[in-house]
Amino acid sequence: MIAHPLPVVYEPIVRAALAEDLGRAGDLTTDAVVPADARAHGVIVARRPGRISGLEIAAATFAAVDAGIKVTLESADGRDAAAGEVLAAVSGPARPVLTAERTALNLLGRLCGIATATRDLVTAVAGTGVRIADTRKTTPGLRALEKYAVRCGGGVNHRFGLDDAVLIKDNHLAIAGGVTEAVRRARAAAGHLVKIEVEVDTLEQLGEALAAGVDAVLLDNMTPEQLRGAVELAGGRVVLEASGGITLATAAEAAATGVDVISAGWLTHSAPALDVALDLEV
Amino acid sequence: MIAHPLPVVYEPIVRAALAEDLGRAGDLTTDAVVPADARAHGVIVARRPGRISGLEIAAATFAAVDAGIKVTLESADGRDAAAGEVLAAVSGPARPVLTAERTALNLLGRLCGIATATRDLVTAVAGTGVRIADTRKTTPGLRALEKYAVRCGGGVNHRFGLDDAVLIKDNHLAIAGGVTEAVRRARAAAGHLVKIEVEVDTLEQLGEALAAGVDAVLLDNMTPEQLRGAVELAGGRVVLEASGGITLATAAEAAATGVDVISAGWLTHSAPALDVALDLEV
Amino acid sequence: MIAHPLPVVYEPIVRAALAEDLGRAGDLTTDAVVPADARAHGVIVARRPGRISGLEIAAATFAAVDAGIKVTLESADGRDAAAGEVLAAVSGPARPVLTAERTALNLLGRLCGIATATRDLVTAVAGTGVRIADTRKTTPGLRALEKYAVRCGGGVNHRFGLDDAVLIKDNHLAIAGGVTEAVRRARAAAGHLVKIEVEVDTLEQLGEALAAGVDAVLLDNMTPEQLRGAVELAGGRVVLEASGGITLATAAEAAATGVDVISAGWLTHSAPALDVALDLEV
Amino acid sequence: MIAHPLPVVYEPIVRAALAEDLGRAGDLTTDAVVPADARAHGVIVARRPGRISGLEIAAATFAAVDAGIKVTLESADGRDAAAGEVLAAVSGPARPVLTAERTALNLLGRLCGIATATRDLVTAVAGTGVRIADTRKTTPGLRALEKYAVRCGGGVNHRFGLDDAVLIKDNHLAIAGGVTEAVRRARAAAGHLVKIEVEVDTLEQLGEALAAGVDAVLLDNMTPEQLRGAVELAGGRVVLEASGGITLATAAEAAATGVDVISAGWLTHSAPALDVALDLEV
Amino acid sequence: MIAHPLPVVYEPIVRAALAEDLGRAGDLTTDAVVPADARAHGVIVARRPGRISGLEIAAATFAAVDAGIKVTLESADGRDAAAGEVLAAVSGPARPVLTAERTALNLLGRLCGIATATRDLVTAVAGTGVRIADTRKTTPGLRALEKYAVRCGGGVNHRFGLDDAVLIKDNHLAIAGGVTEAVRRARAAAGHLVKIEVEVDTLEQLGEALAAGVDAVLLDNMTPEQLRGAVELAGGRVVLEASGGITLATAAEAAATGVDVISAGWLTHSAPALDVALDLEV
Amino acid sequence: MIAHPLPVVYEPIVRAALAEDLGRAGDLTTDAVVPADARAHGVIVARRPGRISGLEIAAATFAAVDAGIKVTLESADGRDAAAGEVLAAVSGPARPVLTAERTALNLLGRLCGIATATRDLVTAVAGTGVRIADTRKTTPGLRALEKYAVRCGGGVNHRFGLDDAVLIKDNHLAIAGGVTEAVRRARAAAGHLVKIEVEVDTLEQLGEALAAGVDAVLLDNMTPEQLRGAVELAGGRVVLEASGGITLATAAEAAATGVDVISAGWLTHSAPALDVALDLEV
Repeated sequence: MIAHPLPVVYEPIVRAALAEDLGRAGDLTTDAVVPADARAHGVIVARRPGRISGLEIAAATFAAVDAGIKVTLESADGRDAAAGEVLAAVSGPARPVLTAERTALNLLGRLCGIATATRDLVTAVAGTGVRIADTRKTTPGLRALEKYAVRCGGGVNHRFGLDDAVLIKDNHLAIAGGVTEAVRRARAAAGHLVKIEVEVDTLEQLGEALAAGVDAVLLDNMTPEQLRGAVELAGGRVVLEASGGITLATAAEAAATGVDVISAGWLTHSAPALDVALDLEV
Repeated sequence: MIAHPLPVVYEPIVRAALAEDLGRAGDLTTDAVVPADARAHGVIVARRPGRISGLEIAAATFAAVDAGIKVTLESADGRDAAAGEVLAAVSGPARPVLTAERTALNLLGRLCGIATATRDLVTAVAGTGVRIADTRKTTPGLRALEKYAVRCGGGVNHRFGLDDAVLIKDNHLAIAGGVTEAVRRARAAAGHLVKIEVEVDTLEQLGEALAAGVDAVLLDNMTPEQLRGAVELAGGRVVLEASGGITLATAAEAAATGVDVISAGWLTHSAPALDVALDLEV
Repeated sequence: MIAHPLPVVYEPIVRAALAEDLGRAGDLTTDAVVPADARAHGVIVARRPGRISGLEIAAATFAAVDAGIKVTLESADGRDAAAGEVLAAVSGPARPVLTAERTALNLLGRLCGIATATRDLVTAVAGTGVRIADTRKTTPGLRALEKYAVRCGGGVNHRFGLDDAVLIKDNHLAIAGGVTEAVRRARAAAGHLVKIEVEVDTLEQLGEALAAGVDAVLLDNMTPEQLRGAVELAGGRVVLEASGGITLATAAEAAATGVDVISAGWLTHSAPALDVALDLEV
Repeated sequence: MIAHPLPVVYEPIVRAALAEDLGRAGDLTTDAVVPADARAHGVIVARRPGRISGLEIAAATFAAVDAGIKVTLESADGRDAAAGEVLAAVSGPARPVLTAERTALNLLGRLCGIATATRDLVTAVAGTGVRIADTRKTTPGLRALEKYAVRCGGGVNHRFGLDDAVLIKDNHLAIAGGVTEAVRRARAAAGHLVKIEVEVDTLEQLGEALAAGVDAVLLDNMTPEQLRGAVELAGGRVVLEASGGITLATAAEAAATGVDVISAGWLTHSAPALDVALDLEV
Repeated sequence: MIAHPLPVVYEPIVRAALAEDLGRAGDLTTDAVVPADARAHGVIVARRPGRISGLEIAAATFAAVDAGIKVTLESADGRDAAAGEVLAAVSGPARPVLTAERTALNLLGRLCGIATATRDLVTAVAGTGVRIADTRKTTPGLRALEKYAVRCGGGVNHRFGLDDAVLIKDNHLAIAGGVTEAVRRARAAAGHLVKIEVEVDTLEQLGEALAAGVDAVLLDNMTPEQLRGAVELAGGRVVLEASGGITLATAAEAAATGVDVISAGWLTHSAPALDVALDLEV
Repeated sequence: MIAHPLPVVYEPIVRAALAEDLGRAGDLTTDAVVPADARAHGVIVARRPGRISGLEIAAATFAAVDAGIKVTLESADGRDAAAGEVLAAVSGPARPVLTAERTALNLLGRLCGIATATRDLVTAVAGTGVRIADTRKTTPGLRALEKYAVRCGGGVNHRFGLDDAVLIKDNHLAIAGGVTEAVRRARAAAGHLVKIEVEVDTLEQLGEALAAGVDAVLLDNMTPEQLRGAVELAGGRVVLEASGGITLATAAEAAATGVDVISAGWLTHSAPALDVALDLEV
């Protein structure tokens, strides 16, 4: 059961997206061409196969334009859809249905795209026990939704922001003068519910991190061989996260090294949208 | 000279993006690990070749965190960058530089990605006189910036929203009962500075549109052969826009048919981000 | 059928207007003087004759204060009302009815005032085929609603902002060095759904504009004689808009010259509010 | 010395007004036609005589678009301007000057219009000691600025909202069952810094109000004869405010009756904008 | 009957408070541990005795998370509760009940705390006719609600802000050069519904204030003896407000001096929250 | 070195607080009484001893009203101040200094109050190695600032919201059917940088939590004896947090039991404000 964002979180995003599309004059075309009493019935379909995410948010988009639009979900977030599969039925007054269409689909297509990319990467490492995680490389303004889409794809969420965990990166290390000192400073400042992860480039740094007692280590841009060395060195004492340049093609090999987590920025910054459409009978 | 969005337009986006990343507690890591008086100097580089867009917005992101950060642009929006090319120099207090880094790069990478995809499509039709246009399939909240990125890539902008032009689509046609009646209604309602475009699937509809005197016709999902037929039929009387399923691979053939504009939703909804990074000497 | 702004557009305006009137302490008088269980029944009436605009927005204002207030419309936007005519019936708990009253009437009176002024100008040119248009000289924050009121008055909307059409004015011409060059630049930059209008003071400039192939020409502050010359010169090739100093008294003469559109800023910046009131039986 | 609203109050209004005019695409015309390095110099002039209000807000509008625009005030809020008089000099980069022009003038013209109407009414009662006051019939969203404009015109401000004083109107009286009981309830609830005014239609009600010990009485729609009777009856014990249907033509007669204040809703809801313009040398 | 703030006033506060607690990822614990179909039933109880304020706002907090949560009030704002007393019953889907709990209780506990402190001070002066008033020393963002809580405690509200009455303090006096001149300036500027209070340290200043004809005088940090002298000097001509350092222990003595109002900043800036809790049967 | 919130975080709070105090009409008193050219010089002093927090935010409040006000800090957040100690010098135009005064002091006094309460509790457990933590019982809208104040007092921050760590409470346990199952569910859902804490009432539950491998355990309302038992049972395997009913008087005894963290809601929900004032020479 994937926890869905609450309306108090996504409704402002939906309203802002609608306002962006409506501008000051609203839907010139629909207002001019479609009679006020026309009705529309139709279905939201996936034109291509993919993992679904954002159906309730799409439904809320129609409702935000006109509370009289009825959207009946035929699928659910977290399920796979075949090409051509019907995801939801939409019926109501034709004008607001047409006006809301693009905004609803923009949100749905983007979230399905991320969920699908995540699912594909999860599938690529199936059976290894490795978890697929996102990053903070998300679209400005949409992080809560995009990280939800990653969960719909079977992934887990890395930090939601700079403020919910410590991740000490190369520049922090350089300024602090090394892993030991950086971790010491972080531990002194962090509350007892804040985990500490450190990014390392070498096994030497990893050794230092293990000695410093961190919760997790990000192995940055390591080769499978290096990753194997890291797994051996860590001996299960910390969570090991492989990150940097891992693709669908290389994920299985990375996963086979025994790391715990593989994270990939492209799940959110470069996943193509899923092609979703509203087919109306009017 | 590509017109840049004004600060009054992009600053709220930058501030919201920063607030999203900072959350309530700010940058736990940097605040703990980096001394308040540490300085950082570095460069923003393109890890891969691409078309630049968003440099000033990235600079404004650093400035929004700390007005004492100095960003010197070494490239400019609308220029191409080679892999490894330095786009800007950044220097200032280390803490805010590190805190702003991800938000700045998220914005820059996304806009460069869109600009690069657009440039590639523009290049694919070079010499034909065909213009490459975006669509309304943009990221919720970022339309103004993403359409700017399209311009940086050499493209032109289609409608910014439902309210700045009439585009009569298949569902509108079905409800209105055909092209002639739909255009009649649109013209009756539209002000004198509103253009009218109609989406057609067949040459028969195109003929009807020409008779109705529209400003532009969107030729939806037509084969090159159909497009050629449309060009012949239109005889230069309207702007012809080919749309639907046109890729980098097929764009040249579509352009060769003589249409005026090719539009593609994937420029904004599926362009992968350009890999940009901040390399610091600390 | 005049397209009404969607709630997603006008509700934020209504809520901000209520917050402005309620301040921090709410309605001191009503809260002190009116018992919580008192009921109120009444009617919104037009004290003077006019064209109605904003009835649903006024109803939404009452509902925003208390969802239990029932407003039954007895007229409709776009209709004319006689002096004393009942526009709507209002009934519900007395406190929120009294609290919402002024904000609802402020919105309604302003929009009716604009609609009435527009209607009068439309009436003044009746039979000529000339359309009456507004300008961007609207009240900050209320443009979407005020332009709707113009439509309720029988007018059409000019640009909604700087971003939905090109209108090259005298200063642009001066900087660009003339009509031909300015239009050339505008055409190069504008997307295919953006119309181009140019403002001219002389027939010589009009000739240049016609040669440049613009979509429309704004004839600025011309005498009827000049307007007639312009109509003759244009020969139906472009939309001609007469603007500048045209009043109710002079509109018929201007319309008789054969121009297509007459625009007037005073429809929105100087139309007196219509006197509307809430008559309660308590 | 008229107290000017603080930037923290008016800047959000200015920014929202600019955003409304710029939309998503900004100033299409200026961006296309005006070179980025062009400079503009010019003056803001009053095309017609009037009382000035809003000059600093207009200047802030230019600055909000581009901090490099320099606006030098040649007049000041609260002064009178002759037709053609220069109010301010504007110089800076041409693009933002042109982009900000309409929003700045919309704000300035509206505020000058209100200030001018107020000044005219103040002038009409000059020498009588009567003060001219506004009402809550202001433009939604602009109350703070419009009430400032009234002060610039020599008027004084009535309530800013429902929450800063008690004004018991006819409907309140009807529900409470009369002046005595309504005032009793109001006094019991109101804090010690809240004044209580009651609206009366008859001298009998006025007598009741005097007995109840209110701070002020609004004499609603009374004839000069009735007003004189009220003045005599009150004998200086309360502030007497004449309101309802008082025009420039009838104000002197009303003032001569000896009332203390004359209030008029049309100062804010129906004052025509003053014609102000930006004349550039480019 | 204490007038409750309207939803249009408190709902934005509730939504912002929820957004603050939910962050970007929502309620990690509840989403993970509680099944989507679990139901919860429980009661909001006062762990300690106190005066109730904010029950409807707490109910609205649950509803803002999920409209399916039913809250039945068992007490009411303005009533006293014994330790352990049930204030409301809550039932609905378990997840949103748990997610909303802390935000609802934070609001309720704070407002009850202020109401209780006010009630205690009111009780301390019972029988003297003295009114207890708050100040502007409220929590940023919560003034409307905190001043409502004061009313629930039996107090009355002083100014809601800098803009609804004149209160001339020591620094104003110093700059103006004395009471007489300061009051003269204030009266010249203030509208006829604005009361004028002056803060004085000595009986000499009080005499000056009485001569100047102010509406109220704030007696700052005076001893009971000084207060008695002030009451004698004033002879009922103005409202006398004792302020500064008055505690629960000293209030009765201050009240006995014959002043009209006692105001205390600690009612809002330092009242401890009332301990309220949600006891669930799950 | 305590990390200060960034301006992008606190400036919106400051601006909203000012807008709340200024209302629509601004500072009536100062605008009327103080000449526009008057200057003010003064100092912010602590009337009582305490720990300082919020000095830069107070300074930013003055600057938000008028950029010409100069605030020179004489102390710093995180330092102790004696009664009467000067914290900062303020000089600039008198009007904005007086207008900003209350808002600046409201923020400063509240944050100093929380910092002082925290410091006192930290002092009470000095030498034990126990850390003092806050809770989520903060003021709606001010959590980021209040948690900063806790850090200024020497405390550490517990969760900032529902989304940055898992804290399984009694109701979660009841629904999940026990500690083991609840922790299993939490671990399955949580990302690798999310810590898991469980609240227990008994040593039996603690044993279950230890077996389940949580990161921390909240010992709810336990007696010192129970706490000692818990410390013994845990044997250093998890962080132990004592919470519930611990006061300044009982903290030392609780700390002596060997727990790691003591958390207290009253640090933020019930700490009295520190008395700070602005003493001007005018």
